Amino acid sequence: MMFKKLLPDWFKQYQSAWLAGDVIAGAIVTVMLIPQSLAYAMLAGLPPQAGLYASLLPIFAYALFGSSMTLAVGPVAVASLMTATALAPLASAGSVDYAALAVILSLLSGVMLFVFGLLRLGFLAYFLSHPVISGFISGSAVIIAIGQLKYIFGIQTPRGGIITTLSGLVQGLPTLNVTTTFLGCGALLFLFFARRYLATVLKQVGLSAKSADLSAKLAPMLVVIVATLIVKLGQLDQQELVSVVGSVPSGLPSLAMPTIELHDIQALWLPALLISLVGFVESVSVAQSLALKRNQRITPNKELLGIGAANIASALSGGYPVTGGFARSVVNFSAGANTPAAGVVSAIFMAIVVAVATSWFYYLPHAVLAATIIVAVIGLIDFKTLQHSWHYDRADALSLILTFFGVIFLGVEEGIVIGVVLSLAVVVWRSSRPHMAVVGRVPGTEHFRNIDRHDVELATGLIALRIDESIYFANAQVLEDKIESLVAESTGTRAVLLIMSAVNQLDSTALGMLDELEKNLQGKGISLQFAEIKGPVLDRLHTTDLGKRMHDRIFLSTHQAFQQYTSKKQA
Amino acid sequence: MMFKKLLPDWFKQYQSAWLAGDVIAGAIVTVMLIPQSLAYAMLAGLPPQAGLYASLLPIFAYALFGSSMTLAVGPVAVASLMTATALAPLASAGSVDYAALAVILSLLSGVMLFVFGLLRLGFLAYFLSHPVISGFISGSAVIIAIGQLKYIFGIQTPRGGIITTLSGLVQGLPTLNVTTTFLGCGALLFLFFARRYLATVLKQVGLSAKSADLSAKLAPMLVVIVATLIVKLGQLDQQELVSVVGSVPSGLPSLAMPTIELHDIQALWLPALLISLVGFVESVSVAQSLALKRNQRITPNKELLGIGAANIASALSGGYPVTGGFARSVVNFSAGANTPAAGVVSAIFMAIVVAVATSWFYYLPHAVLAATIIVAVIGLIDFKTLQHSWHYDRADALSLILTFFGVIFLGVEEGIVIGVVLSLAVVVWRSSRPHMAVVGRVPGTEHFRNIDRHDVELATGLIALRIDESIYFANAQVLEDKIESLVAESTGTRAVLLIMSAVNQLDSTALGMLDELEKNLQGKGISLQFAEIKGPVLDRLHTTDLGKRMHDRIFLSTHQAFQQYTSKKQA
Repeated sequence: MMFKKLLPDWFKQYQSAWLAGDVIAGAIVTVMLIPQSLAYAMLAGLPPQAGLYASLLPIFAYALFGSSMTLAVGPVAVASLMTATALAPLASAGSVDYAALAVILSLLSGVMLFVFGLLRLGFLAYFLSHPVISGFISGSAVIIAIGQLKYIFGIQTPRGGIITTLSGLVQGLPTLNVTTTFLGCGALLFLFFARRYLATVLKQVGLSAKSADLSAKLAPMLVVIVATLIVKLGQLDQQELVSVVGSVPSGLPSLAMPTIELHDIQALWLPALLISLVGFVESVSVAQSLALKRNQRITPNKELLGIGAANIASALSGGYPVTGGFARSVVNFSAGANTPAAGVVSAIFMAIVVAVATSWFYYLPHAVLAATIIVAVIGLIDFKTLQHSWHYDRADALSLILTFFGVIFLGVEEGIVIGVVLSLAVVVWRSSRPHMAVVGRVPGTEHFRNIDRHDVELATGLIALRIDESIYFANAQVLEDKIESLVAESTGTRAVLLIMSAVNQLDSTALGMLDELEKNLQGKGISLQFAEIKGPVLDRLHTTDLGKRMHDRIFLSTHQAFQQYTSKKQA
Repeated sequence: MMFKKLLPDWFKQYQSAWLAGDVIAGAIVTVMLIPQSLAYAMLAGLPPQAGLYASLLPIFAYALFGSSMTLAVGPVAVASLMTATALAPLASAGSVDYAALAVILSLLSGVMLFVFGLLRLGFLAYFLSHPVISGFISGSAVIIAIGQLKYIFGIQTPRGGIITTLSGLVQGLPTLNVTTTFLGCGALLFLFFARRYLATVLKQVGLSAKSADLSAKLAPMLVVIVATLIVKLGQLDQQELVSVVGSVPSGLPSLAMPTIELHDIQALWLPALLISLVGFVESVSVAQSLALKRNQRITPNKELLGIGAANIASALSGGYPVTGGFARSVVNFSAGANTPAAGVVSAIFMAIVVAVATSWFYYLPHAVLAATIIVAVIGLIDFKTLQHSWHYDRADALSLILTFFGVIFLGVEEGIVIGVVLSLAVVVWRSSRPHMAVVGRVPGTEHFRNIDRHDVELATGLIALRIDESIYFANAQVLEDKIESLVAESTGTRAVLLIMSAVNQLDSTALGMLDELEKNLQGKGISLQFAEIKGPVLDRLHTTDLGKRMHDRIFLSTHQAFQQYTSKKQA
């Protein structure tokens, strides 16, 4: 009984009608996943099997805990780049230590996400604004694409930032490997063609729109097969003509609890946190947009558990950090996946491949893997969000641009930190200059409008100010300044009425300011009054000294306050 | 003519009636400033003259650019602690290099503030919430007080965090210097007594309340004089009985432009930024609260220029980072200062002291300076804000507590960074769970109220949702979830009406969400509608695709939207 309770809902309610869709989608995703998992492992600086292993158990773990029906979890480009960035200073890529650290990174990241999920911190997903995410992803894509060019041309470049990489590429061009360059550029050209036109071509030869779109997504597998055959038949792996994947250990990964030491945690907690944050945000936004199309819902707190469990599973089985992949999830969705059973099917297919067929990858050239990465990440570069936000909101556009260049010139981790800080700073900056309007009564009504825009009646000695923003530390001072200057500019003020209809929050800095303001105005014989305070704000205000002092000066409506002021004045 | 334009307003409008107040306040502040500047230089790890120099030119510079009439600028406790923290890893306290780095720190900080002022970034002052500032100041005060105990007992403690310092103190107690301990504890006891009771005692012997309060503030000077006489007459400076200030170079500081190298900037820009931020925030809040009492105004952008210029002046004259001091400004204000001329008077008195009287400080014991520091900073520890915010707003109280412990256990710089991040995170966290209410019409009126709280009419198939928060990246998803779940829960929905009366901002993440939501609802045959959008939000919405698509579904009032829906339905 207990055990059954732990099973996910989709499993308990599974209907046989869903099976066909799940199996077909699982098979198609597998074909897409094989080249991707090898390529992203290369990008992360890990041996190819790390990518394959990361495509097995994590999918089961996500299927148990996650809430999306169609999210395809596994190695992705950005998390692979972030893994490489985090581990580069600690061990040399390809070494045993490096792979062990990748496992620890995945474990830390998984535990963090899982704990965040237990603590119901799903709202963390929303600490990055859309423009900042867009700038981050585009910047990462540029970094990744440029980093792969050395494989396309078969040249060596020194470690370092983008400038070092680019100048290394330019200096290395004279020594490029001609065979590799042919293969790499050929693969690149075909993949770009496939991305742009293959679906159209397939439709013209008679495939249905859906089949054509899906088949076009399998182009990387086709390239991988053709290139592998070319290398094998032409014996291009010999005499250093083409660098190939080589032997990949066959057999399923053995499960092992990684040993972690304190200094590993010290070195890796921040990268793990950043990978978690970015991976989670990306996952949720993919899962959300797919769920919406089918009128399903995802639960951010369950996604934290799901992605967390997937990373823990990846760590236990010799993988590295995973998350929900965009392209792969879209294919899974389009191919008709109904439940996470599709993922389970693809994991089973992958397990069969890993168990018996790793020798097929021996002749697969690195240049072709690099080409699949480049084409995949170029699709992530997003000008549309920049265009839209430039048009709609310059502060958002500026955050996007700064995050983009931060990633490119300072680094991936620095870029994401800049992005978080910018996201938050823009919010505070916006509300630090709140819109405020002195209002008067529209003659003959109970309505009050801005005196600068409307022809309204005023009551002598009463300043009525509407505040169009929550009041908190970032604008409390500005509001106080505004009121002080209104009082200073006018003579004979007897009351200041603050209209709080748009004040959704009042933090303790704001409360302190209002308290001081009330005393200060009182000292000048001016009565501070409030109107139209929202329920939740009023409830808290009533518990304070200020609320108690002012209990007979808090009005439900501006109209009431206005009436009482004028009647008292006449009295 | 040009020159006259540059002069500050207070100077051009100076009235002879103000002079008496300014001279008296200037003299009293000088008496307070002498022991403070020597003590804070010691706290900063600098030779005594650095503190004296920092009390000369910066005051003139502030008088030229600042906007407060009564702020007293000079060395303060928190900035001195932050200086020591920033320089400790770079040079050994007391060395020539150390003093040179302090000058560079002051220059960087001054240039940053001045540039921020030119860019009109005064709103930066508001990036720290009041509880976070309170936690930061209290934490710094604890660190400072504990750090001074070694001087009181005349023992050596190892460098390090608070744990190291405390265990060093306990281990060192058996070797304490008895003479020093007598002097230090005597000074401490007298200063605590003076702080608590001296004003009361003086009032009882016949002084006016104001004179008694002011005289009590001069207790540190009295202790300094008495202790200096005791040491001199008892020759306690010999045989290592008591550690004294020793010879202080006499004569005014020579002006010099410090030489800065790139690696100095790399090492010091962040501490300089943090010192600037904290110093500016403290200054503005002191200046603001004093200005309010006299119905004057201060301008944050001018304060940036004023404090910036003061720090540049401090750097040019061999000082270290300065800012507006709390206690000193209050004394200046209470003693009757009318304009920054009071500061100029005190700077002139200080200059005379520096020019001719530094030999008086030879016998001044370090233990007594430490006692003045301890008593001063203990006054900064603030339980009241914690109490209030605990009562009013737990999130604020938690930020205060975390910042406090962050400063104490992780360090001053770490503490302030934690504080800034917490301040911002609390804002985002609060608005990430916006209050939303499904509303219906109060029968027979045009008013709409929460269906959970009021007995209201609904229109079949219309979901009217009032959103009591700005919509932006931190809550856009939550809102979308809410709407999706409302639609999923009810059948036969034909329209969703969002009432935006409290939506003050709509960022591009929110716009993207609404755009997607509109398309998605449309796909289900549900019409998305808006009502009561604020002017500035509507103006921007009109420029977007979404605004154009929805132009006939945006209503001025909820009532209008309701009427149109019901009339269309009947049609």
